Amino acid sequence: MKIALLGGTGDIAEGLVLRWSKAGHEIIVGSRSEEKAQTITDEYKEKLASLGIEGQITGMANADAAKAAEVVIISIPPEYAASTIESIKDSFTNQVVVTPVVPMSRHEDKAFMFEPPEHGSCALEIQAALPETARLVSAYHNLPAKELSQVEEDLDYDVVICGDDEEAKAIVTKITEDMPTMRVLDAGPLKLSPMIEAITPLIVNLNVKHKKHFSVKFV
Amino acid sequence: MKIALLGGTGDIAEGLVLRWSKAGHEIIVGSRSEEKAQTITDEYKEKLASLGIEGQITGMANADAAKAAEVVIISIPPEYAASTIESIKDSFTNQVVVTPVVPMSRHEDKAFMFEPPEHGSCALEIQAALPETARLVSAYHNLPAKELSQVEEDLDYDVVICGDDEEAKAIVTKITEDMPTMRVLDAGPLKLSPMIEAITPLIVNLNVKHKKHFSVKFV
Repeated sequence: MKIALLGGTGDIAEGLVLRWSKAGHEIIVGSRSEEKAQTITDEYKEKLASLGIEGQITGMANADAAKAAEVVIISIPPEYAASTIESIKDSFTNQVVVTPVVPMSRHEDKAFMFEPPEHGSCALEIQAALPETARLVSAYHNLPAKELSQVEEDLDYDVVICGDDEEAKAIVTKITEDMPTMRVLDAGPLKLSPMIEAITPLIVNLNVKHKKHFSVKFV
Repeated sequence: MKIALLGGTGDIAEGLVLRWSKAGHEIIVGSRSEEKAQTITDEYKEKLASLGIEGQITGMANADAAKAAEVVIISIPPEYAASTIESIKDSFTNQVVVTPVVPMSRHEDKAFMFEPPEHGSCALEIQAALPETARLVSAYHNLPAKELSQVEEDLDYDVVICGDDEEAKAIVTKITEDMPTMRVLDAGPLKLSPMIEAITPLIVNLNVKHKKHFSVKFV
């Protein structure tokens, strides 16, 4: 499929680009400017070549990247995610849009806390910014970036997703299973997203305290 | 140790009573009236006998049960938990108090949602009801009742805990490890509790949709 990563760098973006390229998907890196997107794309191309993966990857400004893709991953920090989507709203028709965005902050005592926007979750805030035709799925909040980017390693994690469009969730399930051997667990409608997003700051606290890169499994 | 279960029936209480009895702990069942507590205690005694477990178990009114115990488990529905603790406040000195209480409700569309009280979590609401000397730990939110009560089966689950008293967390860790082979993961201070409590309604949604009794592991 044609998968755009808006934002395109940082956190889990690299792992997704590498693993989906390996699985034969076409990647579009979106960034604020086409130039920036090209720079990031060149870095990914180099990385893919060094791993012997033949990837199809191009760079575009966010608006063009979203327009060209079937699936759009919002790889943007929580404070800019909804406003970025709002600013390129016209690029969306019926794409599947995926939000892994987590609203959290670090307190002075170093505790990481879930701090949702007024909508109750980043997913609901982003949904309000998208046109109604776009099909939003909440997913990929709890993947450890380092392990995700190690493409030779299989990942025995659960990816909990939620959303209001069954076909969109089926597509996200398919492309997630292309990253072996992650299992998708559909929790239900998009309004469940705060409970999925809130696991991330908990994991970050556990990671700091126990010096791990935890993900989650439901057993 | 002397462990009281206030409320004493329902959900995870049975599994805790059986497993801690098996591990040699002394159980005190607390209920609104001593009479009710005795009835519940007799049922547990019968169950223990049928499983060939020699248990030390007595029934008392909640106030006496809390007073007599070293560790007090609040096995009370969220809407009554804080007010019950408030009503027997004088029974608490420096006991370790454990809250597995989760504030959730079921919407008309059958989705289970995390709906915390004004304090932000049941843990913080209960802390406000307790005297400052009591040492509250948040734990046991995400244990499946049925599996917990099957005492012959080892449980490969993670129990995420949080609290502000390190010694109290060490005691909870010890009595949790007496229920093989659960692992305790300390997340940090008590204020992290909303993120632990919110996993439960997510799991309930997953259970309904996937016909499972999920617990959680961090891997």
